[in-house]
Amino acid sequence: MSLFQNSTILKILEDYKTIWALNHLIALASWDHETYMPEFGVNARGTAMAKVSGLTQNLFLNKKFVDLIKKANDQKNLTDAENGVLRLLNKSLKEYQNLPQDFIEEFVEVTTGAQVAWRNARAKNDYSIFKPFLEKIINLSTKQAEYLGYEKYPYDALLDQFEEGLTTEYVDKFFNSIRDFLKTLLSEIKSQSNYSQNSPIELAEYDHSIMKKTNYSVLDYFHYDSKKLRLDKSSHPFSLSLGNSDIRITTRYLKNNFASSLFSTIHEFGHGLYNQQSDDELAYSPIDGGVSLVIHESQSRFWENMIGRNRKFIEKFYPQFLKLNKDFKKYSVDDFYYYFNQVKPDLIRVEADEVTYHFHIMIRFEIEKMMMAKEVNVDELPELWNSKYKEYLGVSAKENDFENGILQDIHWSQGAIGYFPTYSLGTILSAVWKSFLEKDLGDFSELLTSPEGIQKIKDWLKTNIHQYGGTYTLDELVQKVTGEDFSTKYWKEYLRNKYTT
Amino acid sequence: MSLFQNSTILKILEDYKTIWALNHLIALASWDHETYMPEFGVNARGTAMAKVSGLTQNLFLNKKFVDLIKKANDQKNLTDAENGVLRLLNKSLKEYQNLPQDFIEEFVEVTTGAQVAWRNARAKNDYSIFKPFLEKIINLSTKQAEYLGYEKYPYDALLDQFEEGLTTEYVDKFFNSIRDFLKTLLSEIKSQSNYSQNSPIELAEYDHSIMKKTNYSVLDYFHYDSKKLRLDKSSHPFSLSLGNSDIRITTRYLKNNFASSLFSTIHEFGHGLYNQQSDDELAYSPIDGGVSLVIHESQSRFWENMIGRNRKFIEKFYPQFLKLNKDFKKYSVDDFYYYFNQVKPDLIRVEADEVTYHFHIMIRFEIEKMMMAKEVNVDELPELWNSKYKEYLGVSAKENDFENGILQDIHWSQGAIGYFPTYSLGTILSAVWKSFLEKDLGDFSELLTSPEGIQKIKDWLKTNIHQYGGTYTLDELVQKVTGEDFSTKYWKEYLRNKYTT
Repeated sequence: MSLFQNSTILKILEDYKTIWALNHLIALASWDHETYMPEFGVNARGTAMAKVSGLTQNLFLNKKFVDLIKKANDQKNLTDAENGVLRLLNKSLKEYQNLPQDFIEEFVEVTTGAQVAWRNARAKNDYSIFKPFLEKIINLSTKQAEYLGYEKYPYDALLDQFEEGLTTEYVDKFFNSIRDFLKTLLSEIKSQSNYSQNSPIELAEYDHSIMKKTNYSVLDYFHYDSKKLRLDKSSHPFSLSLGNSDIRITTRYLKNNFASSLFSTIHEFGHGLYNQQSDDELAYSPIDGGVSLVIHESQSRFWENMIGRNRKFIEKFYPQFLKLNKDFKKYSVDDFYYYFNQVKPDLIRVEADEVTYHFHIMIRFEIEKMMMAKEVNVDELPELWNSKYKEYLGVSAKENDFENGILQDIHWSQGAIGYFPTYSLGTILSAVWKSFLEKDLGDFSELLTSPEGIQKIKDWLKTNIHQYGGTYTLDELVQKVTGEDFSTKYWKEYLRNKYTT
Repeated sequence: MSLFQNSTILKILEDYKTIWALNHLIALASWDHETYMPEFGVNARGTAMAKVSGLTQNLFLNKKFVDLIKKANDQKNLTDAENGVLRLLNKSLKEYQNLPQDFIEEFVEVTTGAQVAWRNARAKNDYSIFKPFLEKIINLSTKQAEYLGYEKYPYDALLDQFEEGLTTEYVDKFFNSIRDFLKTLLSEIKSQSNYSQNSPIELAEYDHSIMKKTNYSVLDYFHYDSKKLRLDKSSHPFSLSLGNSDIRITTRYLKNNFASSLFSTIHEFGHGLYNQQSDDELAYSPIDGGVSLVIHESQSRFWENMIGRNRKFIEKFYPQFLKLNKDFKKYSVDDFYYYFNQVKPDLIRVEADEVTYHFHIMIRFEIEKMMMAKEVNVDELPELWNSKYKEYLGVSAKENDFENGILQDIHWSQGAIGYFPTYSLGTILSAVWKSFLEKDLGDFSELLTSPEGIQKIKDWLKTNIHQYGGTYTLDELVQKVTGEDFSTKYWKEYLRNKYTT
């Protein structure tokens, strides 16, 4: 049976193809911007992105198209996919109706330039280069919240943009429900030695070309298809879909800490696979690939943490890790296992372990709340950042070390205020999937020891999650797969089991 | 004084920015298609390109925009740049008005797929993979000619698309005016030894990573700016502009014949420089960068032949060439000079020397004329190709060697029937520029010996040609720079001087 049958929906999808095409090209331009674009190309790129974003809005608000959506809203007996399409179109429609075209174009132009400024600021460890852009972005985000509307706080409007229905209150409650658990767990781990000890491997340099090969070996072990997915490098790893047969992921190669490169690759592969296993019938539709950022992050975290940091997986690639540095021979599988799973309060979010990671997100959430409530200005941000790190993690960047402080994430330069909470929610959701996958497929670690096991995991994810793309909301999908509401209990169990038994 | 002052033109340019933005993204998508796109991404890419091409046409034919163009057509005292903008908009308008949107979308979709088929066909040396696509493209081109209209032959409509005003009769006459000269020159060169002898260097393998470094050294010597121009590899080298600060050029690395990589780089740099030195004020306008393909090719050929194949340039890079293969030490500067300038009738157009090159173009021109006159069908093309090579060059690909025969050029797969003649015209024009540049700057070879000399050449090209972008037609620009009509006499002198004295 075809996923799309209703004649109004079919008309909508036909018209939507042009909007999809523009989104496709905008996504490609973003990928290029982060990977290969010559630096001075940024002005032309900013103009192009702004103009095309405005044009996309125009097409969306075309009366004929809007009337079709309204007509479809009255239809009964739609399929799940049809309802999914309508749900997302109505969300976009509301946003486009509320945001003036000038605003959208300005937002895109400012953030395109801001990303270059952020990169320069980081390279020179000079916050002042980025500060005026950040100020503009906070102001634009405030305007955006006013345009979009909200019930309680302007910040709610931004959260909702990245995850349907997310609110400040919800996130507050969510963090309250895990904060103490994490603090207790962290202090328990600190009192043990294995997970809390510093690893000398972290500081070791490594051969970048061998690391690149290792990344490809890992992708090969995951049965990646080079005709559908490519790996590049960028300063901030990301994943992006240009359709389920054209997935772009990136990784990075820092001077030391090869784990950063390895886990970026695995993490982004997780995102990419979600898009790649989207049903072919969803192509060119608004629900092609993942739509919920929380579900998306649950996939990347699943691969990164549940698979990549599993001892069985590490055993498998142990011989390859040894090749990265001639001194690595002295380390055992256990040494690598504890290096990859070391729990250590530190400065960098993307290198953080499974326990302290959420404190990084809480810090950003609290800062963003203050930004949007105008309780902090851009001059005060570096200090606020450092004081929060001191408070939550007991660490603080050196004075004027902006690169590892306020400048560490690309998100704000992209105008993405309100994005971070989805990282914590997604990470916690990944443990839900693992639990239910094990109920179907049996012992998880065992699955990682063979290509067939990996294929079973991929198939399970495809059947239960990926094939649907954005058909279901987060809550609907969790219900469908687990028969329960979204809960933190599987994740708490997972962490307790891993770190304290 | 500003290049654009007329208020109607200024309104046009403001509206045109959106069309420019779509063209920018389409160009980026083409670049990606040839360089990094995963193979199976082609279907989504084809759909995206087709939809956005159709949309571009829609925007162009928007009544308000068309009315502005009509209004501007009645204005007096326009600047040269304003007239240039109008000239090109009127040309596009006529094309867009005549070509139905369905046709444009079909054309883009078919040619996107055809390029992949061509690549596969080449890789497998299997003409049958490409044949059905070629047949479709010939039929679509015939339709296109009917839509566009023509005075004498359908082929005229295609020629005019690639070079304003070009006709079958003009090209016939042009080739008639150089054919005998070339035949005589070729037989004279054959009777000498230096230029006609086979070079063993051609067959030598070389270190690709050192060649890559050499390409960058050459670009450095040309004062290229890595923040504005990047070099990648692709199976068919090309150049493309995303604005005067974002130029993409490609080269290739064949197993042997490093000259192919070197001269591709230099050739594409010539194209890129033309776009890069376009006046900043032309940004986002239809005349930003080169518009005439003949002028464009005159730039790439100027750098490739006049500079890259000059003995002084070769002397400069001789030490680097020696590093490409440990056996190269036995070769002198002269050996490299004659290798790069060897005149030899052979199968491959892009590797052809300055003399026989034009026979390759004549062959394609004659075949395209026959295609468009339905005097040959796709089954007969390989044999026709080989018989023309036998006739003009005395060589012929081995039976069923399609890769070096009918499948050697990407153009037809891109739907570019009528493009080739611009290569010959541009090559001949490059000698015109050289003559007039020497009148201003003195001995040409001397200029190549220092970075300052190279800069003088770049400045001369900028002042006389590049800054104007597409402001002038081919004929206007030649008149402006030389005070004369376009003529083959400088080119004939150049070849005679080089090869027979």
